[in-house]
Amino acid sequence: MGEMVRIVVVHDETLLRSALAHLLRSDDRLDVSSQCPDADGEARVTPPTDVCVVDGECLTGPDDGRAVRLRARYGDRLVVLTTAKRPGVLRRAFDGGALGLVDKNAPAHRLITAVHTVAKGERFLDETLTVALLEGAEMPLTTRELSVLALASQGAPIAEIAARLHLSRGTVRNYMATAIRKVGARNRVDAIRIVQSAGWT
Amino acid sequence: MGEMVRIVVVHDETLLRSALAHLLRSDDRLDVSSQCPDADGEARVTPPTDVCVVDGECLTGPDDGRAVRLRARYGDRLVVLTTAKRPGVLRRAFDGGALGLVDKNAPAHRLITAVHTVAKGERFLDETLTVALLEGAEMPLTTRELSVLALASQGAPIAEIAARLHLSRGTVRNYMATAIRKVGARNRVDAIRIVQSAGWT
Repeated sequence: MGEMVRIVVVHDETLLRSALAHLLRSDDRLDVSSQCPDADGEARVTPPTDVCVVDGECLTGPDDGRAVRLRARYGDRLVVLTTAKRPGVLRRAFDGGALGLVDKNAPAHRLITAVHTVAKGERFLDETLTVALLEGAEMPLTTRELSVLALASQGAPIAEIAARLHLSRGTVRNYMATAIRKVGARNRVDAIRIVQSAGWT
Repeated sequence: MGEMVRIVVVHDETLLRSALAHLLRSDDRLDVSSQCPDADGEARVTPPTDVCVVDGECLTGPDDGRAVRLRARYGDRLVVLTTAKRPGVLRRAFDGGALGLVDKNAPAHRLITAVHTVAKGERFLDETLTVALLEGAEMPLTTRELSVLALASQGAPIAEIAARLHLSRGTVRNYMATAIRKVGARNRVDAIRIVQSAGWT
């Protein structure tokens, strides 16, 4: 028997957060608490934590402040849950330095192994995620092209995208055309679909 | 102490399915097994079930065969997990006759209460979902308008949508324009975003 590992579970949905905490408590070497991703105030009074288990979807979206806060608080002692269908989420977790990457389709004991591995400061990468991680490395869009698509996906027309990014309409149209071509999409809607489903925005 | 309630947990992601099963097993009046949504073969050898707990996201998407299969197997003894942000998912579960609707943001004991309530053949509806359910009742689009948007969201151009639905291009454009106006969107991309995020497609 080693020492107890103190972990915190971060998930947007209360019910699934509780469920993950229950699963982890099935290992009696784990001391588990759970919190919602934006519980900044609470975090100050929680006990010291060895590992943070977080749903990768909590690290996406326009507010990447969460990802920054979690990294500031837990460093590389993050176990991120995701799937091969979300290479963008995977890539960002990896680039952000998270030591653990666990497939949401893995059996429960994999998550427990991952937590103990990361608690020792070692890397844990589910083999089912490796190919997706490499594909995510090849994200073909520049930051600007991705910003244009992200704004378009929220329903912004060209003129508004141009104003928001301090670009001319012609330049926005050019970025859009390049982005559509690069991701192999048939049109603007198709490009947005491809980029969103990969978790790149 | 009442009798044991036999439940099955259906969730696309193995890890979260296991986690929900762990949470439910914390009540020793529940006898829990778990399966993936398309495990048709397995289902024949599983023991009789009183209640099926299913993630509402498993009931959406182009393949609504799953929803039909689950209803055929478990009747109204379904507890569907969803959120107020997904009125379309909520509405479909309600219209499909599921007795239980539980908010994913509810505390864990609500799910356990819901399971016992539905096992007795009674309705359980989280109050936090009521408003969203009523809003979902007001889905403003016709089936045709929704089909046009659904095909567009997959990246299909007007000509292809017209061919798939056996309509003229002009008619498709009219449906699209009506749909954009009805959901209060600014353009096609915005309409798709609104309809998808509500869970109507």
